[in-house]
Amino acid sequence: MRAAIFQGPKDIVVGDRPDPRIEAPTDAVVRVVLACVCGSDLWYYRGESEHAVGSIGHEFLGVVEDTGADVHRVAKGDLVVAPFIYSDMSCPHCLNGSTISCVVGGNFGDGTIDGGQGEAVRVPLAESTLVKVPGTGHSDAVLRSVLTLSDVMSTGHHAAVSGGVKRGDTVAVVGDGAVGLCAILASKRLGAERIIALSRHADRQRLARQFGATDVVAERGDAAVAAVLDLTTGIGADAALECVGTGQSIDTAASIARPGSTIGVVGVPHGELPFNATFFRNVAWRGGPAPARIYIPDLLDDVLDGTINPGVVLDYDTDLDSIPEGYAAMDERRAIKSLVRIGSI
Amino acid sequence: MRAAIFQGPKDIVVGDRPDPRIEAPTDAVVRVVLACVCGSDLWYYRGESEHAVGSIGHEFLGVVEDTGADVHRVAKGDLVVAPFIYSDMSCPHCLNGSTISCVVGGNFGDGTIDGGQGEAVRVPLAESTLVKVPGTGHSDAVLRSVLTLSDVMSTGHHAAVSGGVKRGDTVAVVGDGAVGLCAILASKRLGAERIIALSRHADRQRLARQFGATDVVAERGDAAVAAVLDLTTGIGADAALECVGTGQSIDTAASIARPGSTIGVVGVPHGELPFNATFFRNVAWRGGPAPARIYIPDLLDDVLDGTINPGVVLDYDTDLDSIPEGYAAMDERRAIKSLVRIGSI
Repeated sequence: MRAAIFQGPKDIVVGDRPDPRIEAPTDAVVRVVLACVCGSDLWYYRGESEHAVGSIGHEFLGVVEDTGADVHRVAKGDLVVAPFIYSDMSCPHCLNGSTISCVVGGNFGDGTIDGGQGEAVRVPLAESTLVKVPGTGHSDAVLRSVLTLSDVMSTGHHAAVSGGVKRGDTVAVVGDGAVGLCAILASKRLGAERIIALSRHADRQRLARQFGATDVVAERGDAAVAAVLDLTTGIGADAALECVGTGQSIDTAASIARPGSTIGVVGVPHGELPFNATFFRNVAWRGGPAPARIYIPDLLDDVLDGTINPGVVLDYDTDLDSIPEGYAAMDERRAIKSLVRIGSI
Repeated sequence: MRAAIFQGPKDIVVGDRPDPRIEAPTDAVVRVVLACVCGSDLWYYRGESEHAVGSIGHEFLGVVEDTGADVHRVAKGDLVVAPFIYSDMSCPHCLNGSTISCVVGGNFGDGTIDGGQGEAVRVPLAESTLVKVPGTGHSDAVLRSVLTLSDVMSTGHHAAVSGGVKRGDTVAVVGDGAVGLCAILASKRLGAERIIALSRHADRQRLARQFGATDVVAERGDAAVAAVLDLTTGIGADAALECVGTGQSIDTAASIARPGSTIGVVGVPHGELPFNATFFRNVAWRGGPAPARIYIPDLLDDVLDGTINPGVVLDYDTDLDSIPEGYAAMDERRAIKSLVRIGSI
């Protein structure tokens, strides 16, 4: 099969990889229909995080092509979406809600296991990992939104859940990337009354408002902190959601969170936490990679009935052959997030 | 009046300070009966944190001597205990549970406001700050336990609350100082089934077990982590409580917390949080100075009916004149925590 191959920073090519086949009775093989490029893939692309040479991509939606003997909940021909981590849902960590710490789980597209950015994927632990998408004849818009449950929308939701967002809250979202935008949508879905988007880009501000932002702060650094405190009569946000991971965005989140609140963190931290500053205000830090498998069923219901449409964050379409251009468009901020059309249903 | 005066590191003297008197209608003057020395006072004593020259001490129990015109809930002659912070309980932060961020509140014994380590204290915002201790003829043991609600027991409780300790949990407490011991007692009170005390000192291990510890780990560093993981079949603790604040204790807490859990932090952090390490396991950090005023009523009920006896952490008795010796005893680890007898009821 053909698949994207990470060769090093700024060096993504499309080449041949072995056709996936059932290797264990718990496997399934999924023919990929839609995939996308993650903000975390950009860390590798830019050489800011390590990635093995080989398969890449961990967000995909596709059609089951084959199943092992122990796979019963999905069958050949089913449309399925995969969380970015495969997990058994029965180990102590999965049972405790931490699917990303599954003792037998792992990451798609880590260089060895197939990635989503290819024609097909061998899915380990398929019974507990894949989620069937019910119905047929879904629109392109719905399918794009289903695809986001694989990671970006689940991650935005995780930011909001980690920050303890509840009905009536004032939420401040740091970051207007695809995850930040999804965190706005997730906060709105959880009943936040006021949502302050920290966003500098006009096109992203528009999407932020479409997703539920009531206020936009275009400043950065100290000016952004002052603006949020001004909007909240000096109190700060009931929940600050950190969706970037740089030193500056972490500091901003720390400064706008009200005493006693929780900062929901989903941006992979590339800076130190200013914990001394937040400690004396009893501001907590909670987050990490999202347990997407746990979130998908509820979010999928809301996608299928049209309540949420996170797929609009995918504002750049490409195909497998042109996937290097999908990376470049995100790297150069010409795109919020790139969709990769690989197969048909 | 006579009071302890902080003059600099290792330099506590007893000297004269102005007799407290009502300065605002919201004030009360309390004649101090019992006070104690806090682990955080030791940071000043050792020169590891800054403290203004002047009054010191923030834990006291005493008898109301005078009240301002706006103080009605306590009256002359009442036995009262004070939280270590005074607060109005009506500002947005107090109403949200963060009394330590009260917009008009402040710290006792900060060099300017009277400290608990003296014959009397002018208590600002007395109506909302002081808690009356009902009944008469309390034993010395009960009074010592009531005194701990001022800070150390409320802080231990805050560690457990921040860590989300619930019925049936396995809790690991890092630190066998007075706060760590109180965190064990608080965890037991909240229903923890298994409590692992990380403690190296035989006398403190004995108290830890008396307070509810089911296991003791005497190792430090990597060996302590290995021991806790071994005791929890590799899973880690449902809640790790960080009650020290050094780099090593913070790292230990980070390593023994199970994925998805929360580290309850009450040791003033003197090291960096290893957030990159905990992020990928979705381990959260929550804590800060305790909202003691909020906790005192419930804990006081349990002290008065004999359910808990945190006062046994006060294992060294002294009086005001000898208070420098109370500091030295703690500094040299001859004492867990020093009681200062100042007046009589």
